[in-house]
Amino acid sequence: MTVTKRTPLPVAEAVAKILKQSTNWNMERVALIHCDNRVLAEDITATHDVPPFDRSPYDGFAIFSNDTKEATENNPVRLKVLETIGAGQIAINEVTSGTAIRIMTGAKIPAGADAVIMLELVKELEDQGGSFIEIKRSVKKNENISFQGEDTKQGILLAEKGTRITPGVIAILATFGYDEVLVFKQPVVGILSTGSELLDVHEELQPGKIRNSNAYMAAAQVRSMGAEVKLYQHRKDDFDSLYQNVKECLNETDIMITTGGVSVGDYDFLPAIYEKLGAEVLFNKIAMRPGSVTTIAVHEGKWLFGLSGNPSACFVGCELFVRPVILSGMKMKKIHCGVVKAILGSDFPKPNPFTRFVRATLIEESGQKIVTPAGLDKSSSVSSLLHANGLIVLPGGTRGWEQGSEVGVLTWNGEGSEWPWDYPLFSKSSAIRTAERQP
Amino acid sequence: MTVTKRTPLPVAEAVAKILKQSTNWNMERVALIHCDNRVLAEDITATHDVPPFDRSPYDGFAIFSNDTKEATENNPVRLKVLETIGAGQIAINEVTSGTAIRIMTGAKIPAGADAVIMLELVKELEDQGGSFIEIKRSVKKNENISFQGEDTKQGILLAEKGTRITPGVIAILATFGYDEVLVFKQPVVGILSTGSELLDVHEELQPGKIRNSNAYMAAAQVRSMGAEVKLYQHRKDDFDSLYQNVKECLNETDIMITTGGVSVGDYDFLPAIYEKLGAEVLFNKIAMRPGSVTTIAVHEGKWLFGLSGNPSACFVGCELFVRPVILSGMKMKKIHCGVVKAILGSDFPKPNPFTRFVRATLIEESGQKIVTPAGLDKSSSVSSLLHANGLIVLPGGTRGWEQGSEVGVLTWNGEGSEWPWDYPLFSKSSAIRTAERQP
Repeated sequence: MTVTKRTPLPVAEAVAKILKQSTNWNMERVALIHCDNRVLAEDITATHDVPPFDRSPYDGFAIFSNDTKEATENNPVRLKVLETIGAGQIAINEVTSGTAIRIMTGAKIPAGADAVIMLELVKELEDQGGSFIEIKRSVKKNENISFQGEDTKQGILLAEKGTRITPGVIAILATFGYDEVLVFKQPVVGILSTGSELLDVHEELQPGKIRNSNAYMAAAQVRSMGAEVKLYQHRKDDFDSLYQNVKECLNETDIMITTGGVSVGDYDFLPAIYEKLGAEVLFNKIAMRPGSVTTIAVHEGKWLFGLSGNPSACFVGCELFVRPVILSGMKMKKIHCGVVKAILGSDFPKPNPFTRFVRATLIEESGQKIVTPAGLDKSSSVSSLLHANGLIVLPGGTRGWEQGSEVGVLTWNGEGSEWPWDYPLFSKSSAIRTAERQP
Repeated sequence: MTVTKRTPLPVAEAVAKILKQSTNWNMERVALIHCDNRVLAEDITATHDVPPFDRSPYDGFAIFSNDTKEATENNPVRLKVLETIGAGQIAINEVTSGTAIRIMTGAKIPAGADAVIMLELVKELEDQGGSFIEIKRSVKKNENISFQGEDTKQGILLAEKGTRITPGVIAILATFGYDEVLVFKQPVVGILSTGSELLDVHEELQPGKIRNSNAYMAAAQVRSMGAEVKLYQHRKDDFDSLYQNVKECLNETDIMITTGGVSVGDYDFLPAIYEKLGAEVLFNKIAMRPGSVTTIAVHEGKWLFGLSGNPSACFVGCELFVRPVILSGMKMKKIHCGVVKAILGSDFPKPNPFTRFVRATLIEESGQKIVTPAGLDKSSSVSSLLHANGLIVLPGGTRGWEQGSEVGVLTWNGEGSEWPWDYPLFSKSSAIRTAERQP
């Protein structure tokens, strides 16, 4: 097999090419108690006013405010208490001049009452005639009443299709009676690891072999984006059996990620398999490190992501290319990683012929964001990956970077972004200007 | 029932009092594919070196570097290719002077070889004598070899007990053969909603009643912290049946949250129920808004959180008080909400006799964090809660706040903090100084 020439595509163009394909996941109804972190597939509107009726925000007495007009410390007004109502109860009586109804927080304001005075501001009395209160101040009309609809009017659009379901969204859904919610189905992502060197996690180490960590890592990544995962493994370095395996996997999934086998080595069969499948290859080389041989194709409405077997490339490929496909199919708006500016916490001496993505730890110290590449110190690179929470983006065509430079960082723990690729620090010219400004 | 006098405790003291109780959740072994977001209950060490053997980082040829000492463009050196090995394969031959072995990325360096030259840098030739390569440059000893243990040495501590399992942690666990992981059991949180005004989500609205949204919201909050949830409901305003209900719920859970019934209204039975249980009440009043009547107690190793029925108080109570209990029982370090500084995006005219927590939306615009209270504009307060991703903390004893002031914000989407309560902007004196500095 000869070395195939491939034309590298800039990262932003590669992502744009992916987004030109329209992706639509199915929908399903899910019980409210099982829809944490799912994504709304319907607009949510207020099915009634909030509050649904005029109600008392405090424990107190519902009164007719005019009765208190003359009330002072020395001239208290006395009102007869007709009954007591708790939240959820409806008063039997009407409040008329000279009377009051004891009312608990959340209860409906009785007819006739136009204000509430708090429990702490009255003196309660009992005599043969019944219960009374004394009020020593005037109360204004409408004081301490939460009016129907003052928080939300019936019919208002509250949450749009494509909204991720947080505890706040769940509160809204419960309030308005959505005991089942229409959400997007979780796309099924198949992860097929290729390579005869790969042992499964439970296997003992053998000479020349390593355990498969990419598949488990990628699985956790795409699950966090909202997908379901099926794991597949292929260990024979043989074209025909791998082709069969890819076809089967593709039948059972919406998105198929392969790790390994996309390069130009003797056993890198994926390019030929895409060709035999008749898949439309969107691109097979990207101007980036790691992951330049990333190959992405579509076939009969399914996605094929050919990521390299390099763990770093595999991680980056999931965040940059798989994420927007999963999230755009759920009609989310912020389908990409978030982007922030940070100060480089240590030198990064390697030159960057192509855009480089470096797994890194982003921290904030007294309002200043500092980002440090993970695994520069090789002896601890594995453990430093544990704490990686961002990708430093070093624009292609730049030399090494000095500690203190401003860099752009992609993050996946926050809310994401609509399109990070226009970020100034991701382009060579602004990035260099910024770096030059540093001491 | 008379109005009980309670002494309000400052928030930081309340949290400190909670943390004086020692909380320890049980442990369990969970399959690697099911441990996303769980928390390690064991230290993870490297069970072998990484790489586990000297290996090739590229597709190329393993050679004896001394053979290339004289090689130049005009004086290429020719080596006989003995065999080809892919990743996972072991060479049969040894590399001796004048020979090479074709090697794929990840394969073990054959005996005798001390360098690798990349595929692209050699010319491959075939003749009757077999396969040969020509090399036109000198290759240094150890060039392109990833040495055993250069990433990680066997025995090194990689991740400590109390680490949340992210995709990066999963990669480590897979690499080192942890197909099952010892993690902390998810504590069972019972959520008992009290109040005869509460309808369940599937019920039609009725006069004077509202649907129970607090329980579903709190459930989603504590699930996101790593707990399991059981929902309970109590609608009778009756002491004895509520007491029985609390006892049963407490038997089936590690933590019990009640919503409603902790105030001083006629049907606020929780204080008396705690007393009858013989629970140790840590405090029953906190110098904060909302949620001043929050009551927290312990009883026979179980936790009782009495939150008010006010949705905002319920939300805040979970984040401030329940979160550190759940996370400290898993030996996590950052058991509290995270804290950041932000600029207030609109006026907040209410005075703050006690520390106030305001649900708010925190955004970042050109590196500047801006936080805007949710629900100030009452007509849309319900929908604005959808987008709340932080709590503005306004220190007690301050007046209204002006747009542009610096404020401290608690967040729950990020990594949390070890102790947010010493944050300068949370204290009245620094907060006021900051506010005065603003235009």
